[in-house]
Amino acid sequence: MIKNDLFLKALKGETVDRPPVWMMRQAGRYLPEFRALREKYDFFTRCQTPELASEITVQPIRRFGMDAAILFSDILVIPQAMNIEVQMKPDFGPYLPSPIRDQKDLDAVAVPDVSEALGYVMDAIRMTKEKLEDTIPLIGFAGSPWTILCYCVQGQGSKSFDLARGFCFTQPKAAHELLQKITDTTIAYLKEKVKAGCNAIQVFDSWGGMLSPTDYQEFSLQYMKQITEALKEEAPVILFGKGCWFALGEMAKTGASALGVDWTCSPRNARYLSGGQITLQGNFDPSRLLSPPSEIKKRVHQMIDGFGKDNYIVNLGHGILPNIPLENAGAFIEAVKEYKAR
Amino acid sequence: MIKNDLFLKALKGETVDRPPVWMMRQAGRYLPEFRALREKYDFFTRCQTPELASEITVQPIRRFGMDAAILFSDILVIPQAMNIEVQMKPDFGPYLPSPIRDQKDLDAVAVPDVSEALGYVMDAIRMTKEKLEDTIPLIGFAGSPWTILCYCVQGQGSKSFDLARGFCFTQPKAAHELLQKITDTTIAYLKEKVKAGCNAIQVFDSWGGMLSPTDYQEFSLQYMKQITEALKEEAPVILFGKGCWFALGEMAKTGASALGVDWTCSPRNARYLSGGQITLQGNFDPSRLLSPPSEIKKRVHQMIDGFGKDNYIVNLGHGILPNIPLENAGAFIEAVKEYKAR
Repeated sequence: MIKNDLFLKALKGETVDRPPVWMMRQAGRYLPEFRALREKYDFFTRCQTPELASEITVQPIRRFGMDAAILFSDILVIPQAMNIEVQMKPDFGPYLPSPIRDQKDLDAVAVPDVSEALGYVMDAIRMTKEKLEDTIPLIGFAGSPWTILCYCVQGQGSKSFDLARGFCFTQPKAAHELLQKITDTTIAYLKEKVKAGCNAIQVFDSWGGMLSPTDYQEFSLQYMKQITEALKEEAPVILFGKGCWFALGEMAKTGASALGVDWTCSPRNARYLSGGQITLQGNFDPSRLLSPPSEIKKRVHQMIDGFGKDNYIVNLGHGILPNIPLENAGAFIEAVKEYKAR
Repeated sequence: MIKNDLFLKALKGETVDRPPVWMMRQAGRYLPEFRALREKYDFFTRCQTPELASEITVQPIRRFGMDAAILFSDILVIPQAMNIEVQMKPDFGPYLPSPIRDQKDLDAVAVPDVSEALGYVMDAIRMTKEKLEDTIPLIGFAGSPWTILCYCVQGQGSKSFDLARGFCFTQPKAAHELLQKITDTTIAYLKEKVKAGCNAIQVFDSWGGMLSPTDYQEFSLQYMKQITEALKEEAPVILFGKGCWFALGEMAKTGASALGVDWTCSPRNARYLSGGQITLQGNFDPSRLLSPPSEIKKRVHQMIDGFGKDNYIVNLGHGILPNIPLENAGAFIEAVKEYKAR
């Protein structure tokens, strides 16, 4: 049904002529057409207006022809729907004026009716699907419960999310209650997204790498596992944990179709740590897109050789940076399309 | 000559009754006696006044009796001595108003006469040695050249040091010239520190984990190797790379006496990745010191069992946080002293 199904084939582990390619944060500030809309509309207006969200989603596809689109949205729409105020401050990032610090704060947190609270996301999905006309698959995403907790407790971005970790270690019962509420909301949300038309789901555990392996099991992995189990019959699930190299083996056993890896994992380490079978996605260093285009192409080909063309989705190891020249982003995509297995 | 030589024994790989213990940033803000001096004297006054630096160094030893002291100082005294202005802004951290962005900026960077430019550090070492009266060893430290470059180029702390990575990838020749200048200065500096009385050296590669394994080889490891080779005959060298799990095998081959590991590495992974022989140091999650003291003790004993009591130095996986209760820091140290091999 979808014309270019390379991405879905790779998620199923089927043999392909070349691996599919997309870029985390491909609908982002490195694109002049994105910046033009960003000047006119603030962050949540762009997320909450289906016409804008769908337009932003397809912008990079028109320019570069990736093999998958990912819906423009934000992981923090979940706490927002759960009755936690989230602001997006220019030159600062997310700001939650009433962070969760104790049981009392937690009692005000709701598990919402997502089709009501997040209906605008479903509208954006339907509108995007129309624009894509079944040319390529559409990915829907959510943050991992642990990563969402980090923001809910810390109240803003952080280098180490000390308050969030401290909350878990001093009030584990409250932490687990919050994580379960986020998980329940996320499962309902992602099921609605699949119903609305998403062909695959990615869960971003952006801050999982702040936890020790044992704490990761307790505070992150078990909740991602619940999500994966609830979703996997409806759509393939990709788990991406930044800095979570140590958990790749456990993540491979969750029922996920693919695991994202960051650029500190060599292809060989990533295959070894994940058990060698599961489809992997990644992991070009986003800063390396500052290298000259010819150098980028050489390194992309080496990366594909390292991972192997099958059971593999080419991506960056994290989101594309705003200062990447268009030509360099283009070289990254082209390199994959030009790839010939050696 | 030094009464408690547990730390030096562990660095030599000798058998011990229990492993030695110290804490990264043990002379820090969690101590009320440190905060009292901090209110009276600004950051660089504390670093540059030998009476203050030596007093701060021995404060945690008096209170908790660690098995090693580490000289109170900062990794940024090196760029400062190299003619790069460094400010320490309250509630902001390091700020370098004239960062290095091109060859022209680089030409103004000097390799100084360290005994002149950093004589105050040597005075602080001599004064600390007098205060310690050979009870325990004194560690001197420096930042890795890559980590120093991060600050010199970025101009301030950062979650991802994108400008620093971009500088290396777009102007590799200039990057290597800067790294070599930092390396030459650091080697001369650390040799002077050993002459002044330091019994061991630790090199902090705080931002090595931002690099891919191949870029780590090129931009960080080869310079730490130069430092280790130049120092290892004069004092044991500990290399600590935060997030550098992927390089532990290579780091073990540099001639270093020990490798520091952060808390994302399980004891088993750390032993495996480093080849199983070299002394390891770490790796309690600093946030886990927020757990109740009884829980801390249990986890410390599990950690020692995991690493094994020999070829091991108990430490945190990164610096102690300012919000750790004194009782909890005490429980960490006591747990090690109470340890009985099972």
